[in-house]
Amino acid sequence: MGELRGRFISLEGGEGVGKSSNIAFIVDWLTDAGIPFIQTREPGGTPLAEEVRELLLRPRDEGMTELSELLLVFAARAQHLHTKIEPALAAGTWVLCDRFTDATFAYQGYGRGLSRDTIEQLQQMVQGARRPDLTLLLDAPVEVGMARAGERGELDRFEQEQHSFFERVRAGYLALAEADPQRFSIIDASQPLADVQRDIGQVLQRFVDGSGASA
Amino acid sequence: MGELRGRFISLEGGEGVGKSSNIAFIVDWLTDAGIPFIQTREPGGTPLAEEVRELLLRPRDEGMTELSELLLVFAARAQHLHTKIEPALAAGTWVLCDRFTDATFAYQGYGRGLSRDTIEQLQQMVQGARRPDLTLLLDAPVEVGMARAGERGELDRFEQEQHSFFERVRAGYLALAEADPQRFSIIDASQPLADVQRDIGQVLQRFVDGSGASA
Repeated sequence: MGELRGRFISLEGGEGVGKSSNIAFIVDWLTDAGIPFIQTREPGGTPLAEEVRELLLRPRDEGMTELSELLLVFAARAQHLHTKIEPALAAGTWVLCDRFTDATFAYQGYGRGLSRDTIEQLQQMVQGARRPDLTLLLDAPVEVGMARAGERGELDRFEQEQHSFFERVRAGYLALAEADPQRFSIIDASQPLADVQRDIGQVLQRFVDGSGASA
Repeated sequence: MGELRGRFISLEGGEGVGKSSNIAFIVDWLTDAGIPFIQTREPGGTPLAEEVRELLLRPRDEGMTELSELLLVFAARAQHLHTKIEPALAAGTWVLCDRFTDATFAYQGYGRGLSRDTIEQLQQMVQGARRPDLTLLLDAPVEVGMARAGERGELDRFEQEQHSFFERVRAGYLALAEADPQRFSIIDASQPLADVQRDIGQVLQRFVDGSGASA
């Protein structure tokens, strides 16, 4: 390794864009490159944060207040960040995270309509200046993702949302990527999987080359 | 009733100050006075918020990050406030709540050391200008409360804290009361129960007389 500091990679995208199979691809890629890393996810990543995830995803009769949802997301994130992500990065371990705060802006902000200002306040409170160093956004038309997600059986509280919700989430993700092109790489997830993974591999290779890490 | 708006009464105090028996006394008092009210508690008060309460109170191996604890408290509060407290008050129903945001300042602020500024940001985000109209603070020396709490059997995550934590909580509550004497009434909870309840009854009578509600 060129230096000790771990790098923080997040993977983002709406429902059915293929995050699981592409996470597996990235895990193999980092392993082959000899990079020490942990794989984790949000919401979740620690036992307590996974309990909060379960609260967030489980459908229930009681409608969840949007602000309550947002605060639960950041409660899980504070626990995850302070007990798992920050210690790993400080030890020189890379972190590969399935979703992070961009998902909050996309789902709770663009999707639910909570204000950017409110989310940014919580981001500052919980993360300070911490952001992913690289964010891979898997992007596909909503129809494509919904068709794939629909094949998975029972839907969680988010997957039960309307088509228009997912259109706002997708547009939100693309706006976030456009606003921070240095951190984001948009991957066309509507391609055949082999082409998606070729693109991801190229992005990772450029990132590693630019990071001073050998690979 | 003199007017429709419901009043919001909170009951505060550390461990073992007798909140349960005094809540029961207040319930009887409001009932006798013919005042329509609901009785609720924090953290909790709705099925979802009670699930968050359980997360907060259950002892676990994983240490809970202080900020995560604070965000869980406010996530439960957002749900409770928006789905139960505000609708009740709007309908002219009084709300009697076992603990509210003063407990957050006392426990997470004075007790855990989280900054007042952080708590105030969340208070503003979740509550806007909403505050209890009357707060009864049951105050007793920590030794008295701890001895009573110790008789209750298994201790939750907060009750397991050290003596110095509860001293900070008590001092915090008294500082909050001193800063807002119009809202707070301090009740000496180290007195015999009959005297505590006489004092509470007098405070309630003055409050009702001043509220324009008949009683």
